[in-house]
Amino acid sequence: MSGTSFIAVDWGTTNRRAYRIENGEVVATERDDRGILSVPAGDFPSLVAELRGRFDGLPVVMAGMVGSNRGWHDAGYVPCPATIETVVAGLVHPCDGVAIVPGVCVDAMGMNGRTRADVMRGEEVQLLGAAASGLAPADALLCQPGTHNKWAVMKGGAIADFTTAMTGEMFAILKAHALIGSEMAGEVDAGDAFREGVVASADADLLAALFGVRAAAVLGRRQPGTAAAYVSGLLIGADCRARIAPGQSVYLLADGLLGRLYSAAITIAGGQAVLVDSHASFVAGITRIRNASS
Amino acid sequence: MSGTSFIAVDWGTTNRRAYRIENGEVVATERDDRGILSVPAGDFPSLVAELRGRFDGLPVVMAGMVGSNRGWHDAGYVPCPATIETVVAGLVHPCDGVAIVPGVCVDAMGMNGRTRADVMRGEEVQLLGAAASGLAPADALLCQPGTHNKWAVMKGGAIADFTTAMTGEMFAILKAHALIGSEMAGEVDAGDAFREGVVASADADLLAALFGVRAAAVLGRRQPGTAAAYVSGLLIGADCRARIAPGQSVYLLADGLLGRLYSAAITIAGGQAVLVDSHASFVAGITRIRNASS
Repeated sequence: MSGTSFIAVDWGTTNRRAYRIENGEVVATERDDRGILSVPAGDFPSLVAELRGRFDGLPVVMAGMVGSNRGWHDAGYVPCPATIETVVAGLVHPCDGVAIVPGVCVDAMGMNGRTRADVMRGEEVQLLGAAASGLAPADALLCQPGTHNKWAVMKGGAIADFTTAMTGEMFAILKAHALIGSEMAGEVDAGDAFREGVVASADADLLAALFGVRAAAVLGRRQPGTAAAYVSGLLIGADCRARIAPGQSVYLLADGLLGRLYSAAITIAGGQAVLVDSHASFVAGITRIRNASS
Repeated sequence: MSGTSFIAVDWGTTNRRAYRIENGEVVATERDDRGILSVPAGDFPSLVAELRGRFDGLPVVMAGMVGSNRGWHDAGYVPCPATIETVVAGLVHPCDGVAIVPGVCVDAMGMNGRTRADVMRGEEVQLLGAAASGLAPADALLCQPGTHNKWAVMKGGAIADFTTAMTGEMFAILKAHALIGSEMAGEVDAGDAFREGVVASADADLLAALFGVRAAAVLGRRQPGTAAAYVSGLLIGADCRARIAPGQSVYLLADGLLGRLYSAAITIAGGQAVLVDSHASFVAGITRIRNASS
């Protein structure tokens, strides 16, 4: 049925995923490395035409960095509180049969008189889908771990407010470029060294705790191969402690390693982690956006 | 008088300074870029011989990274509390007429049952000299801003405890390698944007505040050319707030821009900054070490 069949595309910086969705169910998927950074300006129309050619010419709804100023067409941002309806109202159509989902922003004067600005692009589909489908409660704190980790306060199914932390990016640049980077050998897992870092993050003194990794190495006070996990614990611990009240439930749109790391950190920080299927949340969200727009 | 005349060398990673000191006064100085990283292993004896040749063959007392495992001779670390006497007891003599000052370390079990490790190398001479000469009180909090910023708790003229924060290094790697690095244009000074960053650091949420720089740029909410100063304020603010109690005096071994930035941040964080002459402190410290060792 063409009315309920469409192609959903999650088009990020380095990867692209496409889903053929019929009656809310994924019936085919493909994934490649044609993230927007690999696409020369001007090539988006032909790439999307090719994609549609492989999927019977179905209409397309796209989310993610394809809607940024480095993507095909800048889809802008809708402000919080953001809902399926306000996102649909902000859809842009670079050509017939193609819609791009806008991002969501916080652009507000805080209680303290300071302005607060934040942006997301792509994550809004998962967030709205998780709430709309009941995968997460309509009123809840959701977390999407990653390079730029998102924490969203959902109210009545809307994205009421959110905060981005550069947790993943910080880990990457410390490992690649900081003096302590040379100590950051070893795998990161949710074991003792990671937990030790989460505990140490309670001191709220990240700049000193990070140098402590160097000092411990110089003095032979850290087991070789544990520093990367410890630094990950320091960073994820600091991120979680800034946002979790005691006993708070956090709905984690994550699986694999990031799911295990954030679950462990949230628990140590006094919260409760509930894993939510981020893939199913995306499909639920993009299907509702498609249905509300057609 | 050879008994009170000697050459003091502050030999760091990228620079080297030498002082001819007679009766506690500097009578000649030289500075070059022969930091230890520019010296091939094995060249230290001849470089020091050349230096002594230019200064009538006087004895030499050296401090800084020349005493690290990448320098001429690893001088190790003496533990806190460290005094002129314990540092003198730790002097190493790689050859006749040459002494290298050891570093100082914290290597302790904290009240919370966690081990705490920290190291300094070179800064100890300024700290002990400031206290011994009365440039700073014998019981005081001293701060030495830099790539790896040192905060020393002095008690009875001894280095009782200290903490290193990677404040300067963090600024450098963010500017060079982070996504927000491209926003970090403009000069850093102690003006409005810097102060705004110090105020924002009260939220104790550095990872989110840093991403906020990107979001504010995307949304056009920050004046171009102010982000570098704002980030500097966030980092120095976080560093100061972790260590300053309300009304606390901080004796700052700094001048120029770093002196102005830390003075402003300490004041906003509720403390009082007192500038101390770091050059005079070094001379006072190294002279006392020389006198106590000969």
